[in-house]
Amino acid sequence: MGYFTKRYHPPGTPPGTLVEHAVKKQTPLRIRLIDYNDREFVDMDLATVEDCQPYLSRSSITWIHFHGHVNPDILSEIGTLLSLHPLAMEDVLNAGQRPKIDEYDEHLFIALVLPLGLNENGSAEQVSLFVNENYVVSFHASEHDPFDPLRNRLHRRTGRIRTKRVDYLLYSILDLVIDQGFPVLEHFGERIEEIEEELLNSPNKNTLSKIHEVRRELFLVRRLLWPHREVLNHLLQGDRELVRDDTRIYFRDCYDHTIQIMDLVENYRDMTGSMLEVYLSSISHRLNEIMRVLTLIATIFIPLTFIVGIYGMNFGINTASPWAMPELNWYYGYPTIWVIMIGVVGGMLIYFRKKNWF
Amino acid sequence: MGYFTKRYHPPGTPPGTLVEHAVKKQTPLRIRLIDYNDREFVDMDLATVEDCQPYLSRSSITWIHFHGHVNPDILSEIGTLLSLHPLAMEDVLNAGQRPKIDEYDEHLFIALVLPLGLNENGSAEQVSLFVNENYVVSFHASEHDPFDPLRNRLHRRTGRIRTKRVDYLLYSILDLVIDQGFPVLEHFGERIEEIEEELLNSPNKNTLSKIHEVRRELFLVRRLLWPHREVLNHLLQGDRELVRDDTRIYFRDCYDHTIQIMDLVENYRDMTGSMLEVYLSSISHRLNEIMRVLTLIATIFIPLTFIVGIYGMNFGINTASPWAMPELNWYYGYPTIWVIMIGVVGGMLIYFRKKNWF
Amino acid sequence: MGYFTKRYHPPGTPPGTLVEHAVKKQTPLRIRLIDYNDREFVDMDLATVEDCQPYLSRSSITWIHFHGHVNPDILSEIGTLLSLHPLAMEDVLNAGQRPKIDEYDEHLFIALVLPLGLNENGSAEQVSLFVNENYVVSFHASEHDPFDPLRNRLHRRTGRIRTKRVDYLLYSILDLVIDQGFPVLEHFGERIEEIEEELLNSPNKNTLSKIHEVRRELFLVRRLLWPHREVLNHLLQGDRELVRDDTRIYFRDCYDHTIQIMDLVENYRDMTGSMLEVYLSSISHRLNEIMRVLTLIATIFIPLTFIVGIYGMNFGINTASPWAMPELNWYYGYPTIWVIMIGVVGGMLIYFRKKNWF
Amino acid sequence: MGYFTKRYHPPGTPPGTLVEHAVKKQTPLRIRLIDYNDREFVDMDLATVEDCQPYLSRSSITWIHFHGHVNPDILSEIGTLLSLHPLAMEDVLNAGQRPKIDEYDEHLFIALVLPLGLNENGSAEQVSLFVNENYVVSFHASEHDPFDPLRNRLHRRTGRIRTKRVDYLLYSILDLVIDQGFPVLEHFGERIEEIEEELLNSPNKNTLSKIHEVRRELFLVRRLLWPHREVLNHLLQGDRELVRDDTRIYFRDCYDHTIQIMDLVENYRDMTGSMLEVYLSSISHRLNEIMRVLTLIATIFIPLTFIVGIYGMNFGINTASPWAMPELNWYYGYPTIWVIMIGVVGGMLIYFRKKNWF
Amino acid sequence: MGYFTKRYHPPGTPPGTLVEHAVKKQTPLRIRLIDYNDREFVDMDLATVEDCQPYLSRSSITWIHFHGHVNPDILSEIGTLLSLHPLAMEDVLNAGQRPKIDEYDEHLFIALVLPLGLNENGSAEQVSLFVNENYVVSFHASEHDPFDPLRNRLHRRTGRIRTKRVDYLLYSILDLVIDQGFPVLEHFGERIEEIEEELLNSPNKNTLSKIHEVRRELFLVRRLLWPHREVLNHLLQGDRELVRDDTRIYFRDCYDHTIQIMDLVENYRDMTGSMLEVYLSSISHRLNEIMRVLTLIATIFIPLTFIVGIYGMNFGINTASPWAMPELNWYYGYPTIWVIMIGVVGGMLIYFRKKNWF
Repeated sequence: MGYFTKRYHPPGTPPGTLVEHAVKKQTPLRIRLIDYNDREFVDMDLATVEDCQPYLSRSSITWIHFHGHVNPDILSEIGTLLSLHPLAMEDVLNAGQRPKIDEYDEHLFIALVLPLGLNENGSAEQVSLFVNENYVVSFHASEHDPFDPLRNRLHRRTGRIRTKRVDYLLYSILDLVIDQGFPVLEHFGERIEEIEEELLNSPNKNTLSKIHEVRRELFLVRRLLWPHREVLNHLLQGDRELVRDDTRIYFRDCYDHTIQIMDLVENYRDMTGSMLEVYLSSISHRLNEIMRVLTLIATIFIPLTFIVGIYGMNFGINTASPWAMPELNWYYGYPTIWVIMIGVVGGMLIYFRKKNWF
Repeated sequence: MGYFTKRYHPPGTPPGTLVEHAVKKQTPLRIRLIDYNDREFVDMDLATVEDCQPYLSRSSITWIHFHGHVNPDILSEIGTLLSLHPLAMEDVLNAGQRPKIDEYDEHLFIALVLPLGLNENGSAEQVSLFVNENYVVSFHASEHDPFDPLRNRLHRRTGRIRTKRVDYLLYSILDLVIDQGFPVLEHFGERIEEIEEELLNSPNKNTLSKIHEVRRELFLVRRLLWPHREVLNHLLQGDRELVRDDTRIYFRDCYDHTIQIMDLVENYRDMTGSMLEVYLSSISHRLNEIMRVLTLIATIFIPLTFIVGIYGMNFGINTASPWAMPELNWYYGYPTIWVIMIGVVGGMLIYFRKKNWF
Repeated sequence: MGYFTKRYHPPGTPPGTLVEHAVKKQTPLRIRLIDYNDREFVDMDLATVEDCQPYLSRSSITWIHFHGHVNPDILSEIGTLLSLHPLAMEDVLNAGQRPKIDEYDEHLFIALVLPLGLNENGSAEQVSLFVNENYVVSFHASEHDPFDPLRNRLHRRTGRIRTKRVDYLLYSILDLVIDQGFPVLEHFGERIEEIEEELLNSPNKNTLSKIHEVRRELFLVRRLLWPHREVLNHLLQGDRELVRDDTRIYFRDCYDHTIQIMDLVENYRDMTGSMLEVYLSSISHRLNEIMRVLTLIATIFIPLTFIVGIYGMNFGINTASPWAMPELNWYYGYPTIWVIMIGVVGGMLIYFRKKNWF
Repeated sequence: MGYFTKRYHPPGTPPGTLVEHAVKKQTPLRIRLIDYNDREFVDMDLATVEDCQPYLSRSSITWIHFHGHVNPDILSEIGTLLSLHPLAMEDVLNAGQRPKIDEYDEHLFIALVLPLGLNENGSAEQVSLFVNENYVVSFHASEHDPFDPLRNRLHRRTGRIRTKRVDYLLYSILDLVIDQGFPVLEHFGERIEEIEEELLNSPNKNTLSKIHEVRRELFLVRRLLWPHREVLNHLLQGDRELVRDDTRIYFRDCYDHTIQIMDLVENYRDMTGSMLEVYLSSISHRLNEIMRVLTLIATIFIPLTFIVGIYGMNFGINTASPWAMPELNWYYGYPTIWVIMIGVVGGMLIYFRKKNWF
Repeated sequence: MGYFTKRYHPPGTPPGTLVEHAVKKQTPLRIRLIDYNDREFVDMDLATVEDCQPYLSRSSITWIHFHGHVNPDILSEIGTLLSLHPLAMEDVLNAGQRPKIDEYDEHLFIALVLPLGLNENGSAEQVSLFVNENYVVSFHASEHDPFDPLRNRLHRRTGRIRTKRVDYLLYSILDLVIDQGFPVLEHFGERIEEIEEELLNSPNKNTLSKIHEVRRELFLVRRLLWPHREVLNHLLQGDRELVRDDTRIYFRDCYDHTIQIMDLVENYRDMTGSMLEVYLSSISHRLNEIMRVLTLIATIFIPLTFIVGIYGMNFGINTASPWAMPELNWYYGYPTIWVIMIGVVGGMLIYFRKKNWF
């Protein structure tokens, strides 16, 4: 996972410049138009951008979804058609991965981060939205398409969504994108539990890498998802008349979800921080244990080896000096040595036992 | 204890969808109705939800408590009867474990966390409340029933609670739920003291696991209980007319309790963080002690062993060269070696004493 | 020192219930009444609570101080006499050790923490105050009585305090209680300096315990004293007309003292946190030193011991093979070995010197 | 890189004193004037400061850029010409490296930090701006000139910038300076990824230095760039009429960029903090591994060496005592010893295997 | 450097009590009066406090500076003359070392901390100021006198300061005091760079003490200087009419300096925190290196010593058993042993090389 995932123009580029960034794999573009009110419903794929014009002029709610790779030409076509602000259009291409909301005269621009692909290839996906009283235009350059459940709900004629205004559609999209955080966090939770299991039972080198990796991703998730809170706060508090009173409670619910997600991320981050410390303490503890065994063995046998070394000396072999290791010639010399050695060992064991070493 | 305890719908599910989550063990539902004013008092079990209707239409205060497992059908029945908002009803089932308060036209919705079962099976329980000027409807899916003391107070005809309005009943429930935090924290305090005792006297591997476990639970408790503060703040400051001036001081007291609980949790968290560092320092210190013993023994005996090794060499056994270990044949050779060895040991002891090693 | 020092009722107890908590040692109650204005002064001990009634009805300032153990009966007597709010009376008994201020219709209730006995038995004492325009009623369940200096000032007829209103008396009590923090912090400062001295010169196991203990107490002091700030802020900013403009500057000074105390506590906490890290580094450094000595000795003598071991082998003793350790029979064999060994030692010393090990 | 990079006057110097600070290398001054409106465009180098006067009196937008070293004389000349405030002029010379904005009667003064040369020689460069409704006067004492892309955009007659007012020029300069942060952060991101690679695969002493160096620079970058946020906030919220409504959205975009940059810096800082801890854990883990090998070898061979040492003793060589090492004379003595030694090794291996040491 | 440097009265002392604190060395008092307007200038030493009276009644600006030790008698004399508030006068004596500003009816009281002597004897000095529309009265109990540059500027008749009001004099004093922080921080910066050099090249025990000492001082500096920000903020935002619009920009500049100083202090603190961690990692790394050498030598030579030990056993010397070490009698026995030993060493070196140990 690259740490720097922001795509940016060379500094000094005029604002609103639409330039394509080289991307490895691109999903081909599919323009999907859904136009509905409580009685009628259209769901079709558009061949060109202009095809959406008749629907925009009607009073029904229009949702145009650009799924896959949008090149600058098509984007500027859309921009002209809907009078989108160039700065916002630039943000669609420069997937900046910081959720934000900007109010323009003609429309709201909302950039969201979809944490869907986070665990696979490490880069979150951006969902860009242009919203005004008549339409939602959304962009999502990905292989995945998480919006099917929403389309199914729109298809159902009796669904609440069909009777509501565009703000409810916006809420449904926001809710869908933000709730993708829950399975991601569930996955994090499972990984952390697994690592913890390993940490407390058999900590090894991999445990460390795993903790580090989880932390790294949590730092990233926090950075990416935190600003969702501001986006929803702006929608709830903003003076723009887009969000009506009867829908506000839904946005409030969505806001609560972002808070829940951030609470969990913070919780996980604290946990993993604590786990790093536990890991360090744990291997230090293990080192203690290892060294205790070494010290026990070494301090018992090194003196003994010295003692037997003494009587391996060859003094007295070629000389008859009475000072030359007379012990060797004592009648009980050898058993005496054993008694001494057993005494030394016993003394040490008592000392170590007193020091609580085994 | 699982880290991820939020139950959630698949993203994209319409808001207000009531679906049952698989739960291991379910307490059978018991619907308990208490209806009272200063003169009359009814306490009965209801067989069906509809049975409460006559009481709701009266001017007395009605408290309907759903204890145990509520299935979606019964919930939607209640919802229809009391015109509960679908979003709030969804929150009753999706025990989200984040305390919150939502104002709807018809009623307030309050979700609280009861830290009762935290130490047993690791998942806190949710208490959900619907409140308006006439009734409190509460849900609690648990085996425990902590509300008995409150019912006893209601039974007593002379109790202050019988003369007060519904806001005082709400306060009494909130107070009871929040004060459950005190025994939980007392238990934490005792555990921390025990661990600290162990930490300073005989730190071992288990000490580390215990510190980690306490920290993990404290992180969880902080996350779960922290939002109680917002809930009470909202009730105190909110413009809704539910809480009257004479009851406000009670809610304020309840707010102070949440602050006290959070203060203690923060205090405990800082303490255990400090204990982790002390543990690490403590086992590092112990390692020092162990290594000092090893080094003392090894540095004294290894040179001695070398010296006795020299005179174990077999030079001069088969040869008469005057260069072949003539020391072996000296008259005082053996005692000389002992003098040298005692000198070496003495020198080392002086050196180590100067280095303050024993 | 116990971590959980809050006394609480079982959850569900009605608010305002006055129940005695079991306490080890109780100072017998002494009710002391001081009643004064600029001309008159009364200082007497009361036998019963009712005796204070004549003084309360006069326009002079009345200070009733309950020193020692107050049992629930006496407290409820006082409550009836002065129409104290039951919630506040409960807080007098449940010494909750969180400073707070509550505004009731009849009076202010202020709970303060006196850090006096902190260093002795680890539990701070609570001073509870009821104040209105006519009186101050204070409770202090302790053996110590720190209020004598204040009484002496009241005795002096010329003191500024005799010409001032009840707010100045309140200020004098607050100031006295809060300034008890300075000697406590001075004591902390001295302990930290001592520990630091030890830490940098001869760190040992006790140093760690001492640092931990100081940190533990600082965490506690922070938790206990921090809310004093809110209490004073409330008095300064509150809309209640108790604190008049000419006394406000004194409360402001008192506020500054709480800030100074918290600044110092934070400072000490940062210092001790840093000391924990220094301790860990310091014993790690010492381990390095120990291991360097061991490694030096071991790496020099272990190869030498091997070399002398070779020539302790008995090859060639019972055989005449020319391959059986012919070195033993060389004319200069023994000195050659010494040359080799000295060479090995020299080489190692050069290597270690280059590695900067001694 | 020096830690203290602020140039300051000796305390007590009158405000607005223009004194040259000794700087190692100075780029010669180049005064570049650009004057434009939607029809006309002038881009020329000025020989003296006075040459700009005719342009300033015209209604067109004038941008005077001082590139390179400005000495106090020239600066005070400019100051007199444009009535610049002495305090602001002092800030141009005392490159203080804290972005700020000051409102004077005649003009705004803005100091920005250009993180361009940060990775080369460790000192960020200051860009100082004086702005009012008619002109932008900018100072940049550097070898680099990052403003060429902006000049190119001004040259193009059809560019949006030519039709806009001076606030758009200001925005363009701010945007260019702030966006220089992106390549710098990209470079940081690459370094951190490289270090992480090294950290997890083959941590060595250099890894530590590298982490420390990156952290040091990140601390610096944070300190330098953080106040850009305040500068832009002031421009967006300030009551000065300089930034008009149609340009505000551009400044808002610029503000978002500063937030993105700070988010990344914080993210990197957390990452490197985590990496320090991982490094420590990682080398501790490696020490464990090393010690395990040592302990394994030592505990196996030290007892064996003791055993063979026993039978190297010379008891019984010169004596016929039946107590003098009779084992030596047993028929199967030697194989028995081997059996014992193999038994000891086997027992130890089983013990270590059970302890999970290899 | 003592940690607790606050001088305080025993709790319960009446506010405004002026009591002398025992101080080691006291600079004798010098009262210096400067009285000026744009035409006239007086600079003289006063013998008694009363001598300043004629100057105070004139419309010119009067600056009375008390340099050195002020005893309570003189202070109360000044207090009476200028109607200073007793609380403020107490703060002059109880050098509390927390910068603050208090508004009294007659005057402002400002306490500043001069970080001048910080590096020498560890206690910062207090500068106390009383200011109103006519005068500045300042107290500074120190050996140093940093105000000479300001007096020189006042002497110069053409200086801007002579044409300004008392707020500009106040600004000049504040600026001078606050800017003393820059050389102090420059000195810190140099020390930190030196320590860092040492840390990365040859970390030793002293490095640790030095880091700790710098941190300790930085904690202190932060505590002492941080409140300067509040003082300046109060002056800038306060409703008091002392600071006029044309001088406000100068106070704003001064405010920026306090922010710059705190930014640097925070930066240094983060740096030294990081350095502590680097130190720990660094000596752990070094321990690894040492242990690697020990393990290498020990694991190679211990088995070899065992092998040669085997053939040092005396089996077969006194017996003719064919099982008694027949290897000793083999024709190629000795070279075979060498081959085996070389094989063991080679195998181990290959193993260690694979483990990347050298």
